This record gives sequence, structure tokens and C-alpha cells, in this order.
Amino acid sequence: MPRTKFSLAEADIPTHWYNIAADLPGPPLAPALNADTGKPLTRDEMAHTMPEPLIEQETGTDRTYEIPEQVRELYALWRPSPLFRARRLERALDTPARIYYKYEGVAPTGSHKPNTGIPQAYYNKLAGKTGLVTETGAGQWGSATALSASFFGMTAKIYMVKVSYRQKPYRRSLMETYGAVCVPSPSPETAVGRAVLADDPDSPGSLGIATSEALEAFARDPSLGYVLGSGANHVLLHQTVIGQEAVRQLELADDYPDIVVGCAGGGSNLAGLAFPFMGAMLRGGTPVRVIAAEPAACPTLTKGSVVYDYADTGRLGPLFRMHSLGHAFVPPAVHAGGLRAHGMAPLVSRAVEDGLIEPVAVGQVRCLEAGVTFARAEGVLPAPESTHAVRVAIDEAMRCREEGVSRAIVFGLSGHGHFDLAAYDSYFAGELNEAEADDETLERAAASIPQVAAV
Amino acid sequence: MPRTKFSLAEADIPTHWYNIAADLPGPPLAPALNADTGKPLTRDEMAHTMPEPLIEQETGTDRTYEIPEQVRELYALWRPSPLFRARRLERALDTPARIYYKYEGVAPTGSHKPNTGIPQAYYNKLAGKTGLVTETGAGQWGSATALSASFFGMTAKIYMVKVSYRQKPYRRSLMETYGAVCVPSPSPETAVGRAVLADDPDSPGSLGIATSEALEAFARDPSLGYVLGSGANHVLLHQTVIGQEAVRQLELADDYPDIVVGCAGGGSNLAGLAFPFMGAMLRGGTPVRVIAAEPAACPTLTKGSVVYDYADTGRLGPLFRMHSLGHAFVPPAVHAGGLRAHGMAPLVSRAVEDGLIEPVAVGQVRCLEAGVTFARAEGVLPAPESTHAVRVAIDEAMRCREEGVSRAIVFGLSGHGHFDLAAYDSYFAGELNEAEADDETLERAAASIPQVAAV
Repeated sequence: MPRTKFSLAEADIPTHWYNIAADLPGPPLAPALNADTGKPLTRDEMAHTMPEPLIEQETGTDRTYEIPEQVRELYALWRPSPLFRARRLERALDTPARIYYKYEGVAPTGSHKPNTGIPQAYYNKLAGKTGLVTETGAGQWGSATALSASFFGMTAKIYMVKVSYRQKPYRRSLMETYGAVCVPSPSPETAVGRAVLADDPDSPGSLGIATSEALEAFARDPSLGYVLGSGANHVLLHQTVIGQEAVRQLELADDYPDIVVGCAGGGSNLAGLAFPFMGAMLRGGTPVRVIAAEPAACPTLTKGSVVYDYADTGRLGPLFRMHSLGHAFVPPAVHAGGLRAHGMAPLVSRAVEDGLIEPVAVGQVRCLEAGVTFARAEGVLPAPESTHAVRVAIDEAMRCREEGVSRAIVFGLSGHGHFDLAAYDSYFAGELNEAEADDETLERAAASIPQVAAV
Repeated sequence: MPRTKFSLAEADIPTHWYNIAADLPGPPLAPALNADTGKPLTRDEMAHTMPEPLIEQETGTDRTYEIPEQVRELYALWRPSPLFRARRLERALDTPARIYYKYEGVAPTGSHKPNTGIPQAYYNKLAGKTGLVTETGAGQWGSATALSASFFGMTAKIYMVKVSYRQKPYRRSLMETYGAVCVPSPSPETAVGRAVLADDPDSPGSLGIATSEALEAFARDPSLGYVLGSGANHVLLHQTVIGQEAVRQLELADDYPDIVVGCAGGGSNLAGLAFPFMGAMLRGGTPVRVIAAEPAACPTLTKGSVVYDYADTGRLGPLFRMHSLGHAFVPPAVHAGGLRAHGMAPLVSRAVEDGLIEPVAVGQVRCLEAGVTFARAEGVLPAPESTHAVRVAIDEAMRCREEGVSRAIVFGLSGHGHFDLAAYDSYFAGELNEAEADDETLERAAASIPQVAAV
């Protein structure tokens, strides 16, 4: 029978993470800045929030970093994840395209997030921390943190964006089952949260606000480690296990991608899949077109500017050079809560600036429609975040049909939608619109971008 | 690193289903009876509800039946499923036992049910049916039917036990996403449903009632195929892909089970895992102890009698020789809705009678406690049904510790609990009790067993 599933063995779990900083053309990545001094963050300043090995991974330019044995053992609880040829979807679309998807939903929490949760917990545990604190949008990162903390016998406290806390109560239950405490954000627990609530008691929250709350809680308690689900270089680094496996699996399929698609909120899922292919290209290998699929509700790459801005609304953290809509941006309450980030990972932003990644914004109705098409053809119900990649992959496959050419399209199915059926319910009930961010909101948010001289 | 995950390649998906009827010692399995005549069902009578190939699989004694190519291609969307060595659980329990689990939650609907949903849809489609109708308890079988119907371009109508319909609204959403119609049972749509509602408007429903409703709907519309999620011989046959893969995976682990554990509602998940090991034993191979873990709320094997009884409350179907609590039994509304069946699969009942399977009843609080222990050690959150197997596997591992012996324990993790977090919420809130069926209820239900002379 024609091959559908490309499996690797446990021994094929990558032994190293891949660092694209080693292969990026041009000047080094712009450093993060201390917001008070306007100067690049020193290692000492970084040591405030990160254990030493993570600082090295965050700032270093080695091409690879070894994955600790204990982390690989935990990866083995679900990795290598499968790569599928979407033959039934191809037939349903009547397209000459060869469509592949790399499926991260087999992880215990149903998304790619534990790929970085586990090493971050590991290094924080090594550094003597007894608990973890973080923020979460849709709850995928929060679940991964709860799981990872549980694996290392650590506590976990998760600030969850309030709109998602309400939309996805089972995500909270999952975190609690792993032993974590989950708090809807904005919360009265922090000064940042209280300030937001004073201004708008009905605030749906945002990832920026939740990040500030987590940072504030972290600053109060030296026994805690602060971990983060996307954006940072080391987070993207950890996610490259996805793409490295996909490279080998496509060898098994005797194929190579013309196009790689990932959904992009903070950027780590896209980077994890795409960077190993992009690295091969940058080292003289086969060219590949990489597409970042972002929500029209939060069009960071397509409507943001590349600036120095805060990743957190409360301005407690450093400044990052990245595409940003302004740290005051509060996106509409769309179901793809994991993509509601006002700022993009600096490495992804840089790749977009360099023309290595092409951004596309898509509305949520067209995304969920693609999710339904995919589920009926391939079985797996995609998470609302992942439907953005499905949408763009389908659009590209339809273009192949129009042009009468066969291209290999590889997309990241970053998670399953078993926690997100409310999104599909709303879609079928016709209650959703594309939720595009409006110009006035974007303009107001952009005004929050600080005036910082480039270094 | 020590091996944790035992993966097979797509080419290792079994090519045949295994039929334990070929290896059972003693007389052939007692046939199903026509309830009106008291005589064995004829092939013509069976043809009313089953396409020819399924009748052959239901009644035949060939050792193997070939899996159609199209079914194997669909299996490849998630099969082979992984087998894991639960090393972290072993350490957490400080047990010398070697614990393995076969994980079926990687299926698109999160449980083992599509293993039989797909072939049943396939054969019904071949027979010219354009739609499927069935009943479901917790919604796992309903989801699998919806998925399978979608794969073959068929409609699907699912009668879902009302208590589960309310507890697990996302299961309904999932079925609807695949294009199915899901109706809470008892419903006013059928004579059976109306009769139950007249007697008790607040009836939580039961699998027996839902089965009657599905059979009634089926009888009204010749374009529909009736499919079923457990109990029947051909359903158990289809599930043997689980155990056949596990046999090969344990070869990779260079190990062999002393004990095989599965949760048992209708019996197909247990049979699917255990029958290939039992068959090897019956053909002169290594002895294996097989344990059926059933809920104390619905103690079919431990408190039922082996009798001829209806599988459906409305007495529309034939009589099966099986362990039964009486077709009028309505179990308490426990969260393991998939195990709320008053009758056991005839093949499993026979194996229990023959001493080949040992039944154990366990209360839901101890099961969910085991589920939490498992999730914190191994990551995956088990479905409430699956926690029954986890509980018994842990109990056996603790016995190994007490006795100072190492045994290999293989259990079936039949599904993930991402739709079932309400059960864990209730557990943590201390709202649950063990929900043991009380003697008076059992006695009253037993009185519904018809007086049938054995043939």
C-alpha cells in the first residue's frame, strides 16, 4: 500500500538541538536590551531569570547544543512524533501537491510545547529551583509547564489569559491534575493584574499581561524559576527536534519540501519545524519557501513593525528587537488563544526581515473551515492554532492544482483540538467572524512602542 | 539510554485479524438466539443487521481473517500504536515489576474504537449502505463511528447515553465536526425512548436503552447500516490488531507478559489486547494471566450470571449467552461511561467461564487516583475507563514489590482523558464515591433476565 506514516525509532530522537544563529547570513541577531539603560542585557542580568545553560543557548552561536540524557528519556514518552503524507486530503482537494504533516499532538498534553518545557524544567531544577512560574495563552504552554514540573518534582504556578481560562476549562483541569496551580489573568494577585483590572474589570487578558504577572510573581520568590513558552532563542532551539525529525522522515519518504508552513503566535512551533530546513538551505542546500501563518486577529508579522519593544504589557522584562504590534495590543478573543501574541520571536522576525520567511495572515473562519476539511479527510482534529497552518497548506495545494504543478508541502500540525471543541461549535453555529484587527486598535497599540535608539 | 518506547513501522500493521474461536478449548461458543423462537440465529436473520463478511467474521472459526487493503490504509493514520515501558511509574512505585502499556489514545478520536469502526463502515459501504446508526456510552464509540462514516462519505446518527452527553459535551462536538448527528438517549425520537421517558423523565440513560433506540431507528430505514462498538465477536476480532502489535513490540523489548490487564465494559478493548497472547498460550505457548478490570458500579463479570439475555434494554435484538446483570440494569452515573454495560462480550464471558480471564471490580475513586499517579509519572492522562486497567496494573506491581518478585505486566491504555477532565475535577473536589452497585438494584435488575432454556 502507498506509504502514509513515516515513523522513526526511539534511537532516532535527535541528540542535539539545532541553533540557526550559526547559519544566519549578515550581522548577528540584535541583542535584547535592558529597558532602563538601553544597553544590551549582560549575562549577569540574564542570570536573574535564566540558569547558565539556558543563557548559553540563548546567546551562543554554536550550531548545535547537546540534549541532556534525562531530557531525551522524557522526550521518548512521545517522540519521535509521526510524519504523515496526507494522501486523503490530497484526494479530497484533487491536487497534484504532495502534502505532509508533522503531528505534535501525540505529546501527553496534546501539543509541541513540552519539547521546551522539559529542558527548561530540567535546567531550573539543576540550578536549585523548586518551582516554576509562567504565563499561558490557550493553556498549551501551561499544561506543558505543569507536566514538566511534575516530571521533576517541582511546583508550578500558571497565569492563564482569562478569555482562554473561560473558553477552555479542561486546560485548567489538566494543569491541576499534574499538580499545578492555575490563575486567570489579569488577577488581583499582582500589582500588574490589579492595575489592569482597575482600568477594565472585564479585561479578557492578553499574553502580555499574563507575562507581566508571572514575572512579578517570579521576582517575589527566589525559589521559583521563570520559564517561557515561546519567543526566546533557546525556546526555538529546543523546538528544532521537530524539524530535525521531519528532515529524516522526508528522507524515508524520498521527498523534500518545496514549502514549509507553520502557524506563528510567538514563533516557536514554526521555527522548530522550519529552522532545520532553512539551515540546510543557508549552508548551500535545497531552497525552501517557508510560510508563517498568523491570525488576522493578531497580525504581528504582516501589520507590525520591527522595533524594540517589551514582550510583556507591564514592562517588567527587557526589550526585544522584533515585529511588534505594541505591547499594549489586546487582540480580539479568538479561539486560537495560543497565537494572541503582540510580539514575534526575534529569530523569526529576523528571518522575515531577511526574506527567509514569508508571513500570511488568515481569518479564523477560513481556518476552522480548513480544520473541518482536514479532520474529515485525515481524522485528526487540529487545534485552532494549527488550523492556520492547515489553511495555508490547503491554499498552497489549491494553487498547485490551478498551476498544474506538484509541490511538496510540509506543515506543522502543532496540536490536536480535543480541548478546543467550543471553537468548532461556534464555527458550526455561525457565531464567528474573521476577527480581523481593526486599524484604530492597531494604531492605538502601536503608540505603546517605546522610543529606543537602535544599538 | 534505557528503552522506553517500542515503535513499529507502517509495514508492521497486522495484515490479518486474529480469531480466538479457532483456539478455544471445548465446545464451540454458544450461538446467539432469536428471542422469539429461542433458536440459534440463522445467517438470514443475521443478514438483517450485518453485511456478509461481518457474518462470516462473527460466526466463523478460521484462525485469521484478512484485513482489507483500504482498512489497513486507514489504520495507518495512527497505527501501529506505541508500546511503552513505564519506567517512571515503576520508579514511582518502587516496584521490581516491569510495566508496559499499549497506548491507543493516538487514534484521531483518542481511543481504540476506530479499530472496529473503520472495518464496519467499510463493509457496510460495500453492501450499499449510505449511512450508519449506532449507540454510544461515553462517546468514544460514537466518535469512532462518526469518523469512520466520514472516511467513507456516509452519514452517521448516534444515540448517546444522556448522562455522558451532559458530562462530555465535547464528545458531541467532535461527532458533529465529523458530520454526524448526535442524539441524547433516551430520546423522544423512538418508541423505546418515549417509553423510558414516560416511566422516568430524568432517566440518565444506559447503553442498553441507547442500543434499543439505535436498533429501532435502523429498522425504520433500509439505507442505514447498524454498527456496534463492543460485544460482538467480529468487534473483538477487529480489535486484535492491538494485541498482535503488542506481541511484536514485546519481542523488541525482549520480554513477555506474566500478566495482561485491560478494562472491560463490553469487553472489546480487553479482548483486543489479550486474545493474541491467550491464543499463543492455548496453542502451547507461554502461560499468561489475563485480568479484566471492571467498574464496581457495573460489576458484570464479578456479580452477573452467565445467562441468555438481551444486549439491549428494549429487547429488540437477539439473546446472547454472556455474563449479564439483567438488561434492565441501569448503572450509577459514573464517569467511566464506556464501561456502563450490563452484558459482557460472549467471547470474554466464555474465557472467564473457562478460567482464562480473571475478573476484578474496582471503585472509581481508586481508579482516578491511579490515573493521577500514572499521569504524573508517565505524562499521558488516562481516560476514566482506562484508569481501571491502570489501577489493577498498579495493584499487581505493588504485589510484586511485597513479594519481591519481578513480573512483566502489560496493560491497555485504551484512551486519553482529554475529553474527561470533569471526572478528574470531581475527583479532586472529593465529590466522588466508589459508586458500588447495591444489592437491591442488582437483584431487581437480575429479575429482568429472560427464562431461556440453554440450547
